[in-house]
Amino acid sequence: MERFVVTYHIALEEGASARSLAESVLTEQTVEVPPAVAARYAEVRERMTGRLRAFRPAPEGGFLATLSLPTENAASGVVPFLNVLFGNASLHEELTLADFTLPPDLQALFDGPRFGKEGLRERTNVPRRPLTCSALKPVGRPVEALADLCRQLATGGIDVIKDDHYLADQPFAPFIERVQACQAAVEEVEARTGHRALYAPHLSGTPDEVRRQADRAQAAGVGAVLVAPMLLGLPLFYELVHTRLEVPVLAHPSFAGSQRIRPALLGRLFRLFGADAVIFPSYGGRFSYDRDTCAAFADALRTPWHRYRPALPTPAGGMTVERVPELVTFYGPEVMLLIGGSLLEAENAIVARARAFARSATRAGHAGNS
Amino acid sequence: MERFVVTYHIALEEGASARSLAESVLTEQTVEVPPAVAARYAEVRERMTGRLRAFRPAPEGGFLATLSLPTENAASGVVPFLNVLFGNASLHEELTLADFTLPPDLQALFDGPRFGKEGLRERTNVPRRPLTCSALKPVGRPVEALADLCRQLATGGIDVIKDDHYLADQPFAPFIERVQACQAAVEEVEARTGHRALYAPHLSGTPDEVRRQADRAQAAGVGAVLVAPMLLGLPLFYELVHTRLEVPVLAHPSFAGSQRIRPALLGRLFRLFGADAVIFPSYGGRFSYDRDTCAAFADALRTPWHRYRPALPTPAGGMTVERVPELVTFYGPEVMLLIGGSLLEAENAIVARARAFARSATRAGHAGNS
Repeated sequence: MERFVVTYHIALEEGASARSLAESVLTEQTVEVPPAVAARYAEVRERMTGRLRAFRPAPEGGFLATLSLPTENAASGVVPFLNVLFGNASLHEELTLADFTLPPDLQALFDGPRFGKEGLRERTNVPRRPLTCSALKPVGRPVEALADLCRQLATGGIDVIKDDHYLADQPFAPFIERVQACQAAVEEVEARTGHRALYAPHLSGTPDEVRRQADRAQAAGVGAVLVAPMLLGLPLFYELVHTRLEVPVLAHPSFAGSQRIRPALLGRLFRLFGADAVIFPSYGGRFSYDRDTCAAFADALRTPWHRYRPALPTPAGGMTVERVPELVTFYGPEVMLLIGGSLLEAENAIVARARAFARSATRAGHAGNS
Repeated sequence: MERFVVTYHIALEEGASARSLAESVLTEQTVEVPPAVAARYAEVRERMTGRLRAFRPAPEGGFLATLSLPTENAASGVVPFLNVLFGNASLHEELTLADFTLPPDLQALFDGPRFGKEGLRERTNVPRRPLTCSALKPVGRPVEALADLCRQLATGGIDVIKDDHYLADQPFAPFIERVQACQAAVEEVEARTGHRALYAPHLSGTPDEVRRQADRAQAAGVGAVLVAPMLLGLPLFYELVHTRLEVPVLAHPSFAGSQRIRPALLGRLFRLFGADAVIFPSYGGRFSYDRDTCAAFADALRTPWHRYRPALPTPAGGMTVERVPELVTFYGPEVMLLIGGSLLEAENAIVARARAFARSATRAGHAGNS
């Protein structure tokens, strides 16, 4: 029988308590009745119960409990999958989702990225070097100002220009007007310079709102979209990607509250659910992920994994042009670097700063490839 | 100008570091650019920036940072609201969402529960005593067995009978067959005994799947539904409740990973987004919420709050019939007690155990009201 193997980290100091919690979580994530009740029915006992496959001290303290779970339940849809993966278990404050495998039954649920890393390289026409990405911000600026910034960033040679994730459908920059103006800006730059930047508007809202935004953005000709999967919920993200989107999708980590799901696993889930590139807060910026966390996050996106295309790691959160060589040394050339606010600091030099960013990424990519 | 006041708990020991994090989060949750860039544009400086309104040591250790944020951004939809409430902030592992206010601009986004506590009392015909709730489980059992259990629980006098949250649309108990059989069971019991139990099937899936399930369940005549808002994502939950559901909705906490959002606030969010009753893991069961957490959770659902109807607290997670008097003393009579697995322990006495549960709830309610 196929097994779904899930590992939780248990932040308890005492082995016996941790083991007892692991055993109770085993019941929680399978039959959720007293063991005697589960044992009563053959179909439940034989097909729905799990076992504690390994229990060991974790290198970082606490314990790692590896559960072997039946797939039958999880395989019935992407939401049942999430429910078995970390549903009730997430209510135990001591538990963090630390690892999971994906047996064939569950692989059948997911197609992963539709374009992935290579698809993004094709669409931006960047075969080898690190890609560059920047953001339209700050929120509050009117459509013309955002479109003008978009034009400057594209002129400077940025590959992917995304909306700030706070841009939604506010009165001061209505969605469709913003999307049309920014898309027109990248097209105008392409006609003038030959450089094609992908503009990625932020889709956010309830299912109906998001679908409408996707349709309108694609009708306007955008080259990609930005979506925050945890803000929308993974089921809506999944359905949007697979039934509505014809362009690559960048995933934003907003609302991911990632302490309880190891950050790298969040990357793996986003890839599984269809993200082509995943933005995450890099070490050395405004957030506190350390180097190991960031390396694991990038790996989770790029490493060969079943039939799923690799996705493009997109470190962000307070990066600067000056740090490009160091970031490329750390992440390697298979990366998209996202620098937002820092490009805007010199109001009259945005094109020049964007150009410096693009040049630096090209140079660093060559150095890394040589 | 309207302000959105949000409080985060910061789990750092050193005041200066915590204060500096609070200041950086203030930027993160508003303009997300260096302060000099935000200051450059009048419309951003005057309308989109926030301020640190209070910063103080928390009684439980760490610090509480209270941010005053502009509403303009958050008021543009329920997803922008979540984004400003705890979007990027959730990526800071030291941060927990501890409190928020809801100024009129943001109140306009939400209608809260459509039925609430009183609506559930009307529909179950239980004007005063605590309501009783039980679950169809374990997952893995065929439709006839689940319908038979439903019949027994209804015969025993249970008020609300919900699907186990692992029941989805599995081959061994397909959604529509299960729903029709269980609804027929409660109708048969009503015709025979006059006791009307509400059957609440679990809706779970992608937006299209969930809408289809809602339509089919309501066509089958169900009296309520069960939904896990965090598993589906709050935007899908919101749209489902307000555009599709004609019956009360019970919210299940699966996937809520509630450490980073204070549990009571999760209850408040579920009420805001439209839950009529909210299930949560009670103290003294399989989970580790303590009494204060549970009291605060119940309060968040019941306390007068703007124009929103109170919702019914539904403590669960390893409760027993023997604990009913204690639970009613603790929570008061304005509660729905959920006992699942424990009623099933004596295979041949399920009706009797359900009856004991219902009787005990009635007695405890009288004692509490006297």
